[in-house]
Amino acid sequence: MALIVKKFGGSSVGSTEKIMNVAKRVISEKKPEDQIVMVVSAMGDTTDDLIDLAKKINKDPYRYEREMDMLLTTGEQVSIALLTMAFKTLGQKAISLTGPMAGMHTDSTHTKGRIMDITPKRVEEELKKGNIVVVAGFQGADDIGDPVTLGRGGSDTSAVALAGALHADSCEIFTDVDGIYSADPRVEPDARRMKEITYDEMLEMARLGAGVMQPRSVEMGKHMGIPIHVRSTFTNKPGTIIREDYTMEEKDFVIRGVAHDAKVAKVAVLGVPNNPGIARSIFMPLADAHVDVDMIVQSIRNIEKNVTDMVFTIASDDLGRAKEIVDKVANDLNAIAVLVEKDVAKVSIVGAGMLGSPGIAARMFGALADAGINIDVISTSEISISCLVKKADMEKAVNAIHEEFFPKK
Amino acid sequence: MALIVKKFGGSSVGSTEKIMNVAKRVISEKKPEDQIVMVVSAMGDTTDDLIDLAKKINKDPYRYEREMDMLLTTGEQVSIALLTMAFKTLGQKAISLTGPMAGMHTDSTHTKGRIMDITPKRVEEELKKGNIVVVAGFQGADDIGDPVTLGRGGSDTSAVALAGALHADSCEIFTDVDGIYSADPRVEPDARRMKEITYDEMLEMARLGAGVMQPRSVEMGKHMGIPIHVRSTFTNKPGTIIREDYTMEEKDFVIRGVAHDAKVAKVAVLGVPNNPGIARSIFMPLADAHVDVDMIVQSIRNIEKNVTDMVFTIASDDLGRAKEIVDKVANDLNAIAVLVEKDVAKVSIVGAGMLGSPGIAARMFGALADAGINIDVISTSEISISCLVKKADMEKAVNAIHEEFFPKK
Repeated sequence: MALIVKKFGGSSVGSTEKIMNVAKRVISEKKPEDQIVMVVSAMGDTTDDLIDLAKKINKDPYRYEREMDMLLTTGEQVSIALLTMAFKTLGQKAISLTGPMAGMHTDSTHTKGRIMDITPKRVEEELKKGNIVVVAGFQGADDIGDPVTLGRGGSDTSAVALAGALHADSCEIFTDVDGIYSADPRVEPDARRMKEITYDEMLEMARLGAGVMQPRSVEMGKHMGIPIHVRSTFTNKPGTIIREDYTMEEKDFVIRGVAHDAKVAKVAVLGVPNNPGIARSIFMPLADAHVDVDMIVQSIRNIEKNVTDMVFTIASDDLGRAKEIVDKVANDLNAIAVLVEKDVAKVSIVGAGMLGSPGIAARMFGALADAGINIDVISTSEISISCLVKKADMEKAVNAIHEEFFPKK
Repeated sequence: MALIVKKFGGSSVGSTEKIMNVAKRVISEKKPEDQIVMVVSAMGDTTDDLIDLAKKINKDPYRYEREMDMLLTTGEQVSIALLTMAFKTLGQKAISLTGPMAGMHTDSTHTKGRIMDITPKRVEEELKKGNIVVVAGFQGADDIGDPVTLGRGGSDTSAVALAGALHADSCEIFTDVDGIYSADPRVEPDARRMKEITYDEMLEMARLGAGVMQPRSVEMGKHMGIPIHVRSTFTNKPGTIIREDYTMEEKDFVIRGVAHDAKVAKVAVLGVPNNPGIARSIFMPLADAHVDVDMIVQSIRNIEKNVTDMVFTIASDDLGRAKEIVDKVANDLNAIAVLVEKDVAKVSIVGAGMLGSPGIAARMFGALADAGINIDVISTSEISISCLVKKADMEKAVNAIHEEFFPKK
């Protein structure tokens, strides 16, 4: 007997036909003794439609966060009722539970709630009665019973957390891709689907621009020790399992993937006197303004005058805000100039195995050099190496690095 | 200071514009010290749209009653969120509560729930904080916390019951008519709006075909001693107050109204031997088949042979079912014939005052006679007299009786 949590997102339940298909598929895969918990999102565009309705009352409805949660939690409630009816129509015992009914207890940060704990007593009772239990993702209730939504990627997080609380055997996340690839297949035609990837690698891939899974749900999986099985809603391919460590056969590759991120911008503060506290005086005001700084490189400009250059990258969306802050700081510091560049992209390799394999970085740089690509900035973490390149070179860079580490068979 | 519960139905909150209008009106009527609880239904066609969605999963979705309740309770939840946003947008403190959050505790009869008790602790707390409290009508939760809808007229019942539990000063039901009239204004152009009417009169009017208020909510008002103020959503007319007894000035009319009902059918079982148990043998099988029998007249057909005729009326919708049952019984009883007539209508007068005023019945019959209208069957209750007439005579009958008791000034 296995207890499996299966999560289907909004596009998987976007119409009544799709809902019927989800029910049919789950029943067809279910072994008689399996216990199934479904976690579902709102149907397709429902959430957007509800937000549009609220905007007719107030142009900025999110200022009323609690009421937005009251409004938006109806979306999943519709999905769970319809999916449960679909199961029953197909002759399968089933019951729907809202997030709060499933014991999903959150803090009171409306529209961006965090799960505090889960007491899935009702879920367990209904499983014992032989029901498929259909739970509303993305939602819970706070101490006083008010509805709270979990914010971006919330349904994945609900599913993984619920799987943890139920001590489930696995948590399957059904999505519109059929697994985690060694690179984005839209950029790298030879990208391979990984059978397995570790939580840490997946988190690093997500941080570096790979968009399949929200980091929050992967963190939750790591925290609760629940393997996350990423599968396709539309095919029966085996997908990818995100877990703590590899099984033997997957240990062949020292890196797990090549990530890329085009939404970065480079900021260079040139000619800053290299005194203690210089870095703080640049980066503290950025942090205060919630601008995340990614790669940071400090290099000597003039050793005799003790003048340095400070180069860093940020999300391109933050550039306007960051420029304003940095200009002011640079002025205070008597810097020579502030240069910004939006024409850049970051390509990265990720792999928990690279720690024990010397020469990985050299192979990456070599592949880029062979492809005639100039590297602007380099940064490294324990399980990743990132290079900033010209945006125009990004795809070529991904292809060159991928061919180096995942050579065509 | 007054604590007022105000209920607005689906057509009053049918669009975001209408929701804004409701909020504006309530704020404009609110005295600074007033405490306001709003009870609202789902927006306009929302409930029908949700039912249509469910029908795409299963042609008969109401077989899954619990899941229908899970689905349909989202309708009011959307309304309360939007109306609360409207209040806040207009600068008024407000908060939304679902039925369960407002302490509405029901039995587990899904889609036709009954309110068991109300513990409106949260409502009281939020009122104390200066909020207008916006509560979802039509819904509650049962012992295990499952959502339950109250069935037809449920929002009115929610409002009145909540007013009772809060010891409110009054409960205002906003609707598309501006009060209770002495007759249906579509039939009787001179119909007068009543300032007051008693619970019992209102219940009798409803039973006899006047459709403004669902009997359930009036019963709830009577049970809890809450005056129900029927008002128009669209005008500022004073409306009608339904209460236990009249204030002095309203005691002028011995009758309160003229009701009519065109949806009746007459059944006559002719030539039945008049033995003990004959009535039971006809009416018990009808009761078993949930056919409500209204007027009943038994008359002697042949005193020497001890043979009688049994005539009664039922709702015309039940005629098919009833005819089948009665034909069978008549055959068993060796009756001469069963006649059915659909071309009939019932006109009634209602008034708690008629008990102490002799001659009311005579005046009614006289008015009909003067108008040349034949009376087929007569029945009476403590506070009403009903006459069955030809359907073609119904309007003329209403007009004649109305002129007798509410003469044009």
